[in-house]
This record gives sequence, C-alpha cells and structure tokens, in this order.
Amino acid sequence: MEKKTVGIGLVGAGFMGRCHANAFRSVAGLFDLPVVPRLSMLADASDELARRGADALGFERSTADWQALVRDAEVGIVAITAPNLLHAPIALAAIAAGKTVYCEKPLSTTAASALEMTGAAEAAGVTTLVGFNFLHNPMIRLARDIIASGEIGEVTGFRGRHAENYMASPDAPHSFRTDPAGGGALADIGSHIVSMARFLIGPIAEVQADCRTIHPTRPVAPGSADRAPVEVDDMTHALLRFENGAAGSIEANWAATARHMDLSWEITGTKGALAFSQERMNELLLWSGTPGRSGYTRIEAGPAHPPYGAFCPAPGHHLGFNDLKVIEVAELLAAHAGQGSCGPDFREAYDVQRVIEAMQESDRARGWVTL
Amino acid sequence: MEKKTVGIGLVGAGFMGRCHANAFRSVAGLFDLPVVPRLSMLADASDELARRGADALGFERSTADWQALVRDAEVGIVAITAPNLLHAPIALAAIAAGKTVYCEKPLSTTAASALEMTGAAEAAGVTTLVGFNFLHNPMIRLARDIIASGEIGEVTGFRGRHAENYMASPDAPHSFRTDPAGGGALADIGSHIVSMARFLIGPIAEVQADCRTIHPTRPVAPGSADRAPVEVDDMTHALLRFENGAAGSIEANWAATARHMDLSWEITGTKGALAFSQERMNELLLWSGTPGRSGYTRIEAGPAHPPYGAFCPAPGHHLGFNDLKVIEVAELLAAHAGQGSCGPDFREAYDVQRVIEAMQESDRARGWVTL
Amino acid sequence: MEKKTVGIGLVGAGFMGRCHANAFRSVAGLFDLPVVPRLSMLADASDELARRGADALGFERSTADWQALVRDAEVGIVAITAPNLLHAPIALAAIAAGKTVYCEKPLSTTAASALEMTGAAEAAGVTTLVGFNFLHNPMIRLARDIIASGEIGEVTGFRGRHAENYMASPDAPHSFRTDPAGGGALADIGSHIVSMARFLIGPIAEVQADCRTIHPTRPVAPGSADRAPVEVDDMTHALLRFENGAAGSIEANWAATARHMDLSWEITGTKGALAFSQERMNELLLWSGTPGRSGYTRIEAGPAHPPYGAFCPAPGHHLGFNDLKVIEVAELLAAHAGQGSCGPDFREAYDVQRVIEAMQESDRARGWVTL
Amino acid sequence: MEKKTVGIGLVGAGFMGRCHANAFRSVAGLFDLPVVPRLSMLADASDELARRGADALGFERSTADWQALVRDAEVGIVAITAPNLLHAPIALAAIAAGKTVYCEKPLSTTAASALEMTGAAEAAGVTTLVGFNFLHNPMIRLARDIIASGEIGEVTGFRGRHAENYMASPDAPHSFRTDPAGGGALADIGSHIVSMARFLIGPIAEVQADCRTIHPTRPVAPGSADRAPVEVDDMTHALLRFENGAAGSIEANWAATARHMDLSWEITGTKGALAFSQERMNELLLWSGTPGRSGYTRIEAGPAHPPYGAFCPAPGHHLGFNDLKVIEVAELLAAHAGQGSCGPDFREAYDVQRVIEAMQESDRARGWVTL
Repeated sequence: MEKKTVGIGLVGAGFMGRCHANAFRSVAGLFDLPVVPRLSMLADASDELARRGADALGFERSTADWQALVRDAEVGIVAITAPNLLHAPIALAAIAAGKTVYCEKPLSTTAASALEMTGAAEAAGVTTLVGFNFLHNPMIRLARDIIASGEIGEVTGFRGRHAENYMASPDAPHSFRTDPAGGGALADIGSHIVSMARFLIGPIAEVQADCRTIHPTRPVAPGSADRAPVEVDDMTHALLRFENGAAGSIEANWAATARHMDLSWEITGTKGALAFSQERMNELLLWSGTPGRSGYTRIEAGPAHPPYGAFCPAPGHHLGFNDLKVIEVAELLAAHAGQGSCGPDFREAYDVQRVIEAMQESDRARGWVTL
Repeated sequence: MEKKTVGIGLVGAGFMGRCHANAFRSVAGLFDLPVVPRLSMLADASDELARRGADALGFERSTADWQALVRDAEVGIVAITAPNLLHAPIALAAIAAGKTVYCEKPLSTTAASALEMTGAAEAAGVTTLVGFNFLHNPMIRLARDIIASGEIGEVTGFRGRHAENYMASPDAPHSFRTDPAGGGALADIGSHIVSMARFLIGPIAEVQADCRTIHPTRPVAPGSADRAPVEVDDMTHALLRFENGAAGSIEANWAATARHMDLSWEITGTKGALAFSQERMNELLLWSGTPGRSGYTRIEAGPAHPPYGAFCPAPGHHLGFNDLKVIEVAELLAAHAGQGSCGPDFREAYDVQRVIEAMQESDRARGWVTL
Repeated sequence: MEKKTVGIGLVGAGFMGRCHANAFRSVAGLFDLPVVPRLSMLADASDELARRGADALGFERSTADWQALVRDAEVGIVAITAPNLLHAPIALAAIAAGKTVYCEKPLSTTAASALEMTGAAEAAGVTTLVGFNFLHNPMIRLARDIIASGEIGEVTGFRGRHAENYMASPDAPHSFRTDPAGGGALADIGSHIVSMARFLIGPIAEVQADCRTIHPTRPVAPGSADRAPVEVDDMTHALLRFENGAAGSIEANWAATARHMDLSWEITGTKGALAFSQERMNELLLWSGTPGRSGYTRIEAGPAHPPYGAFCPAPGHHLGFNDLKVIEVAELLAAHAGQGSCGPDFREAYDVQRVIEAMQESDRARGWVTL
Repeated sequence: MEKKTVGIGLVGAGFMGRCHANAFRSVAGLFDLPVVPRLSMLADASDELARRGADALGFERSTADWQALVRDAEVGIVAITAPNLLHAPIALAAIAAGKTVYCEKPLSTTAASALEMTGAAEAAGVTTLVGFNFLHNPMIRLARDIIASGEIGEVTGFRGRHAENYMASPDAPHSFRTDPAGGGALADIGSHIVSMARFLIGPIAEVQADCRTIHPTRPVAPGSADRAPVEVDDMTHALLRFENGAAGSIEANWAATARHMDLSWEITGTKGALAFSQERMNELLLWSGTPGRSGYTRIEAGPAHPPYGAFCPAPGHHLGFNDLKVIEVAELLAAHAGQGSCGPDFREAYDVQRVIEAMQESDRARGWVTL
C-alpha cells in the first residue's frame, strides 16, 4: 500500500534551508510515518537562486515568489527559513491558506508580531512548529521525563547557558544578527536556553538581566574597513525565577571565545540533579545519592531513549545535529497527519520571546520584570 | 544542467541496509557530487521482504534474486549488506558484471576468500569499498594528517580498543556472530581497531594474541533454554608490532559490560600524542608540550576538519554515526565517477583480515606470528 | 645553624584548627622557611578541651583563656579558628599585642566589624592573613599569571560558582551557619568565589543578587523534632560588573544536591579563556586558538607551577586540600619574617565582605547596588 | 595520658626520604594512633648530607653509618629510601636487629634477593611494609571492597597501565633507573600497575610481554655529550591471565609523552565495571546497569571512604599524593603496635617482582611464562 504524501514548500535555501531539506529527505527511511514528505517546491530571492537551490536540495519545482509557494495546491507544509523579518508575512499567508507552518526560530523579530502570528494560527486551527531543534534530543526528553517523574524531587535551581564564539571577533561584521529589530546574543541564542528551561522546568515568572555590548562597533559588511555602532548585546547574564518557585540564572554569549556550542545547564532538585551540555549532546548526567556511591552517572544515548532507535538499533552510536532536525520533522509530519500535536508551537515560541523581551526591558530598567 | 545519476542496487535491508539507504538518500543534498545516486533496486531473501524493504527505504524496484540485481543494467553500484557468507558470491558476481562494489565488513569470512575477491576486483579494475565507516570521521582524518605531518614526531606506541557490551550477557544467543567461520569479538569488532591502527600508523608486522571465551555456552536462539558451546572469543587482548617500529596492544571485547562504543586509542609520538574514543566521536585530543602549559587539547569537530562542513557550516554541531556513512558514500560516488580512489578497498580489507587470522593463529600457537 | 622559630598560638581545635595544626607541623619539612613554627599554645573553650586538643595536635601548652594565649610572650602568630563571632575580639586583642594574625574566613560577621579589624591592623602595622585557602592553589596562580600577561586578551566575562550540598537536606540543622549575623550560603561559601573573582579579575563595581531560602525551617539542633524558621539564603544567584568592564554572574549554593566542592569558574577573554573547578583542583583549562587545533588544553599541576615543587619534584602527583593550607602557612611565615607580604590580608577580606553585603542589600532592594 | 612513641630511623634523604619524613611528621595530628612516631635518626651518604637532611626534615640525630642507625636502641622502625642496591643489606640488618622495616619499592633489584629478604623477615617475625603507596588511596580500597562484595559480578577483564613521560626525551640520562640490575620502565613503574592488579583481582598465573627500548642510547650523565647504550625497556606491553580466570593486558611506559601519572585501569565484571586513573585520584568510576539509566557513576572521595575522614570531615576536598604516604605510615604504625597487619609486606613485594621477572623472561623467550 502506497503511503499518503504531503508536499513540502521550503522558503529559503541557506544553512537552515539545507538542513530542512536534508531532514525531509531522510525522515521517511528512518521513521514509520503516517505521511511521507515530497520535496515539492522551493522559493528563494530570485528565480536563479531558487532554481539552483531546488537542484541542489532535490526539490521538484522552484519559484522566486514565496506567495505562489504558499498558495500552491500541492504544498501542504510551508517551511520557513527565510530572513527573520519575512517570517511573519510568510507565516500569516500560509496560515491564511490553511497550511501547516514550520518556522525557524525566532518566530518573529518582536513579541507583538509573534503574538499576532500565534493568534492567527490558533484561530485558523493549523498545525505549527518552531525550530527549537535542540529540544528534540532524546537526552533532553529523558531529562524531562526524569524531572516529571519526581525522581530528582522538587526542582530548586537552574543554571543555564548558551555560549558560542561566532561573534567573538571585533571584526565579525554587522548582519541581521546585529539588527536592533530582533538581533543580539540574547535573542539569537539565549532563546535556546530559555526555551529549554521552559521545556524542562516550566514557565518563568520574573527576570533581571544585564545585557552587555562587548564590541562597540563592527564592520558594516564582511571585510569592510567602515565600522558602525552595535546596538545589541554580545553577552547577557540574567537571573530568573520560575512559577514553580525554582530560581537560577542564564547566560547568552556569542563572544564566548572558547565555546562552539555550550548550550548547557545543571538542574538541581531536592533529591537529585541533572546536567547536560550540547558539547556532548549524546550524554546526560544524572545524580543520585546511594550512600558511599553517590555521583553523577553519565548516561549514553541509546535505543532506551526514544526516538534514538529510529536511527540505530545499537546504543552509543551517536546522533548528530542534523538528526535532531530529522526528529523535529518526523513529529511535524505526524502532527500534520493528525497524530498528536508537535511542539514547540507558535504559542510556545511567543512565550519564549516574551521572556527575551522582559529580560531586555529589565536591563534598561535596572530592576526585575514580572512576566 | 541535470547531473548524471548512478543506480544503486542494495542487497540486504537489515540494520546496515537501512543505514546504506539513508546515506544514499542524504548524500546528494549535502555533498557536491559528480554523480547522483538513484535508489534503483533492492534485493532481499524473499519477494515479500524485498518489496517491503524497497517501500520502506525508497527503492524503485525489488527482487528476491540478487543475481538479477547484480546483472541489472540500471545498477551501477552494488551495495552488499547481506549475511557475511554471501559477501563473496555476490561481490564476485558484481565484479564479473563490471560493477562498483560496496561491501559491508567483514569482506568475507576467511582471509583466503577475501584474497580471491581482492584478486578478482583488481583484475577487473572495478572500484571497491568496504564499510569501515569509523575511518571516515573527520577527527580520524585530522589525526592521520597530524601524524603524517610529523607534528607528534615518530610514533612509538599504540594502545587501542574496541569494546562493546552487546554480548556481555551469557544469555545473548548464538547467531552469525558466534559462527566459527568468521565470528567472534576479534573478527566482529577487533577488525575496526585493527583497520584504524593501519589507517593511522601503517602495516602491522607481528602479533601475539590471547583469545578468551567468557561464556562457554549460549542459547541456540533468542530466548531458547537450549544452550550450545561457544567456539569463538568474547574478548581478545593482543600485542602488536608495526613495520615502522612502533609497538602496542589492542583489545577486542564484546562482553565489556560498561561500554557501548569504546573504539578508542592513544598514539604516542616522540614529540606529542593523540587520543580518541568513538564515545566522543566529535573530539580529538592532541598533546603538545609548551612548557608550563603542556597538556591534551580537546579539539571539537568543525568546518576546519573536512568534510564536516558538508553537514554544517558552524563548528561544534556534532556529526552522528549515520553521517559517517554519508561521508563513506560520498567518497564511493566520487571514486565511481573517476574522481580519485576511495578507501578502504578490498585489498585493505583483506590485509585487515590477515591480521585478524594471524592473531587467532598466535593464540593457538601461544607465540608471536609474523605477517 | 639553627633556624629562628616562631611560636604559634592556635585558638580553636575543630575542623579548621586541626587543619592549621597539620599545616604548621608539615610546612618546615616542605618549604625552605626563614622562620620555623613551634606549636606553642592551644586555646579552646575549656581546660579539658584545650588539653585534649593540644595533645592530639601536638601543641606544647594549652589554655581555656584565649586572652592569655594572645598575650603569651612565646606566641608570635595568633591563629584564629574559633566561632565567627569571636574573630573580632581575638583579632583585636592580638593586634593590640602586636602579634601577626592569621584568621579563618569570614573575617567577621559584619563588614563594619571587619573594617574595624582592618583599621586596627593597619594602624598597628601587623601582618594579617585570612584563610581563603583556595587562592593558594598553584593552578589559580597560574590562571592569574596568564590573565595578567594578556595571554587571553581583555577579560570580558566571568561565570563563577561555589556549590556544595552540606545543607541540601531540609533536616540539616540550624547552627552558626544559619545565624542571621554572618550566616547563609552567600556569606559562607559565596565569599570564596567572590574572593577568587577579585583575585583573578579585580574589584567588583556593581551587583544584583537573588537570595533564596529553599528550606523555610530547619531543626533547632541535630536530630531535633523542633524546627525554627530559616532567615538566611540557601542559594544565591547574582549578576556582577567589574571595575575593568568585565561582567558576569556567580552562584552560591549549599543545597546543590549533586555537588561537594564545585568552586568553579570560566573566564572569557578576547583572545582566549580559562576554566577551573575545585572538583579537579590539579587541572587548569586554557583555551587558545590555533586554527584547526583550537580547544581547551588541560594543564596538569607540576613543578612548573610554583610552589607545587615544594611538595613533589614530579608532575601529575596531585596536591590535596590540606596542601593548600600548607602553602598558606608558608606564605604567612615568610611575611611574618619580613620577606614580602602575604595575602589576602584583612583589607582584602573586608572588601570581600562588602561585596557580600552589597549583594544581600541588592536582594532586599530588588535592584543593582554600586560598591 | 602520654602516648607511647616509636623512634623512626630513616635511611636516605632524597625525594622519597622527604616524603617519608613529611608523613611521619603529619600522621599523629590526623590519625588516632596507638603509637606516635619520633623522628629519631637520619642516615645519609656522608656526615654532612645526613646532618643537613636531619635539619631540613626535623630528625633529632644524624649519621653517615646506616649500620649504626639500624642498631640504635631508640629506633624501632627502619625506613629505607636509599638506592635500590642498598635495600637488601639494610633490610637484612634491620630484620636481624628485630626492627620493623619500611622499604621503598622495588624491594630489591632481583626477585632472588627479594625472596631472601622475605624469608628473613618471616623467620624473624618482624613487621614489614613496602611503599606501593598508590594502594592506600581510599578510592582503590573502595574498588577492592566493591569487587570483593560481588557487586560487579565475576571479574572477566583487566586493562591497566602506568604511563609517565619522565624518560620520554632521548636526552634523559642514564641513572639507577637504566641499570640492567632492576631498572627499566617495567620494573620502575610497571610494578605499580602489577601490584594494583594483584591487590584488586588476585594472583597472576601467566604472562607474555613485549619489552621495547625506544631510545637505543642515552647520555651517560645529565647534560653529557657522551652516550651509552640502553639495555632496559622504555615501554612494555604485556598480556596476563589471573588465577581466577580473568585476563587482560598492562602497559608500562616511561616515554609516554602525554602522561604524567596515568596509573589507570578498567576492570570489567559480569554485572558491572570499575575504572580509575591516578590522574584523577579522588574519583572512582562505577558502572551499574539500571535500564535506561546505565552508565559510569563518578564517585568523589569523601568521609564515606575511609580513611579519607582522617584528613577532612567534608567530602570533595581532595587528598593529594603526599596524603597517600600518610595513610601508609598510619597503617605501618598500627601494625608495629600490634594492631592488625599492614600491607603490602615483603612477601607481596616479592610476588610482584616475580611477575615482573616473568614478563621480562617471556619477552626474551617470545612466549608465555607461567608463574
């Protein structure tokens, strides 16, 4: 029996576009899906770019007009990896067309516009998913299950961080990342650690942040000798209190010289603790207190931690970053076919963005901000 | 301009078959290839199995007759993931048909038959590749480049291991793995550390091994109460001397309770050292001796380590096990199109097998065996 | 030629008193000192306790009257390990008697009284030392030298923590540690990470803290069923800005279930970075950016890192916690003999205490406090 | 009540002599001992050296005549840190004088002479102890207890190593270490991993070794341009079988460029496993197999692991190398006072030496040697 298919319409063929395409190509051979993706159409900024992208990534058709893609009858899922400023108009058009919408993070450049997108999606009843791919790691799900089970007791403390070094050089140029509308280290990567904190512990009630610009100017373009002022943060440290009473801190830092992917945290509970870093994404540390034998146990990912088994029947064989995107897409396809809901959806992405904006506001106000 | 394609004929749809199929599906979206794979035909033990495999893995056609697949005009590359005993007949038929042959390890169950396959391939001038996928890790290539550059001086010592726990239980049953023809921990996983030692340091001149059976009997089938004697090793420790004068030891152990994938080694040179474990496959440790600052540096995989960049433009994002297979397949396709040679080829796999058999012989003889 | 000796008068024979005594007994055999300590007199709360302490720790004489000890002609150095409330009166009396004063941390229970002690010591011109022993680790000094040399560029970020679990249980009872005068996790162990931040980076300009009480009541005594409210913090997270422009955060937590001694930090500079944890106190991580080889180098303590060589001529042999106290005492004795100054002195301990109190004030005020 | 004392007579004031003296000075303040050591007399090669050593290390008297020391009425324990060739005559004289004998490893330069010393000690009924100090680490004792309890099942495999780099340079000169009588990496440091293997698992039944000289010549003296051939091993890899059926390998290597103190092992049992490295001597890794949560647990040393508590009442505060010597001396003093026996005694040291010599013989014979 032939499986049902769904046409994928991808907008944007850059880094994340390639990553989406790869996930859609791989997923059907790894997961038993209710609906199989077809790489139907790719849109990019020009006909030429779109055609080349479609050839490279294996899409059937291409267009320079994302509106045509959104309206296309064969397209059931619109995947948005376009520049951040375009997320809102594309998503709103896709929602209006009744399509499932799969959008890269950040959902939008402002919480206000993210809320508008969320409201539209909820009113239309369409399935949405935002690409906080790190949440789909089997070890992160294991962590959530452990916390939910009460195994580490009540959560008391959280200490999180997302630190990379891609903007560490004062000569890393301006780009959309440094645009005051939605830019800065906190918005760009701090959103990952905020989303993970929420995923694992729950809503955040209050924040107090210190946003710092390390390099006051940057080149206006790659290699340019002209420099322009930087208006966004390179590094933010923040205090946070969760609704359930836990408290802690986060750091977002894109000038963390020594770090490539330190999306990491320790969660302390009254009976145990958990620790994780994306630097060793196939491991979770779990502390339990057998007398004389207490210590962190290094759990290696394996088939006991779904959906690892979809990739390999043997433990210890390592998932990679691109595999997280495959898991994300598998859940999207299941939700599109009506089998459960996927997450994080637009509502969740909006809530993350509210936390980010509250942190930015607390920095300006030099005091706590309640959400 | 449409790219040239090559038809893939896959024999076997088990664990490694899925892994091959996934790699062939993914590779064209990640690598810029001279020839693009088409999943042309899948063969399995019955029509039904083959048809189901083809559906699940995305092959165009299926057959219960691997001979038909090997002769098929659309098939340019024959990929063999069938049981080990079938490697030789399938490969020989594919060679006779002038096909590129991509065979899972071990190449065959005996060195003699591996030599026959090697001779046939070399006489026919066909491209061959054997699936020692761990060699395709960018960090392993970095290690080889560092050694070749002389950066760690002359290699003096090697200490290697491949330890897993999939046969640690006395109730893990008999299977092809425990077949005296080609079975045992040394042949099954010891071959990985032997191939890696050769890849990094060069030919092995002499060996002395101690092969041990830990569990004298195992169930004749999964869950069976009937037990039959085990004639192969569960654990082998071996001494080895390389042609270039370096010396060391390896361990092969499939009853290593605490280990899932400890394919690991330390290589000592006169000026520096390197260390690696597949447990942290995205890291390479490099020692260098700045006074007062000497120590192992933990290098994280990134675009500076080709072909990592084909998967992700940002460092620290982790490749997974399946990605190694994609790299392997990318090289196979390039070699098939006449762009350089890929490796390890049949000749190399035969040489690995000779080392394995010399170790087994040294165990029986209780003395050194010269290769 | 006989060496000059100095009489040690120790007040308090508990955990830290034993530790002091051990250090004074060991130091002369390990360091080449200008003056050799004699264990002259020990004072404790009663004649009996003092006599037993003196016997156990090898002191020549004992007394229940610390005032007699302070005045004793043979005592040149007064070592104070008595309860925190007694630090001030004992130290002030010792200063008045012209003695060198070696005081355990915290210097006093309030910054005001610490300032009075500091003023008295400076006016009298006596040598003082406060027991922030973790600063005397050769790896911490190596870190300071590296920072001072400019090797990691300008320091931009600091992320520090002192987390232990000795008060993690809700049944850990009240004690001097939970006394509102000078108690709480921040004062008790947060002072270590604050002193280390100052030692490595310099003065702190502004703070904003969140002090939390995790367990609202605790037993009034060990094993008691009666519980009394807790008025001090179990866990504090704080933001901080340094005078030199660096920014960061600290955590002080004595209810960190999984941690015994996580006095740890990462310091990011514009050209490199350093990381350390007391959990692996014989290692320092130094990041430097050789292209394709960048990463953290794990430096193991050895004779290249003074004064490690005083303990062992071979690298990698590990110093322990008690050895840090021996180093502290060696520096105290040298300073007492007029060979340089030791640190941290009373002034530095007072400055640490001001930071602690500013954090507590910022918590109450829910805003930044400038020092 | 004054405690009984015992006079210590130390022969040799070099690295290990200082280490002994420090341990004897410290031990009484840390352990509750039945007998307290007095640093009674120190012997060295000349009056001048002995006098200076005694001053530096705090001994009451000194002598250039070790025979006088051995006969001295106040000396109850003779501690031997003299050159290896002198171990036998000093120990035999001390045994004849009825003294407790505390000898640094190796017990002697040949197994034959070690056997003679053992026979003499046993005939005289004197207490003996040989300085395999690494065995006294609380984490090693914890490992032995865990193995003895059956918690990891039957031991099946052992993989051990002692690797350092103090002879890695071809310009490291000849010394007693390269003397064919008792020299070489295997005898010098391989003895530590052999003693630890025996301590943890039991007697070794068969061995097969490969002894390699990496640098064929070395300077005849430090800094000399004259070089002489090297007749001992720089690196040995060996296979071993234990009497209880376990099997494994060891490496001894003093030219291991990247290693300062890699005295390390992994022990695999049928139900669990243990791993340790002296590089992190305050940690023991214990594997246990809770489904979905299996992994190595990193146990940090603390008061739950005697005699850690003698040094510090709080966990995680780290013992150092010198502390191991203090533990060794505490046990020696207890055994001297008739409270239990200490170990490893001369018999055990002889057995270790037999294993070393069997390995050397197996290298020459190119085959297994049965003990």
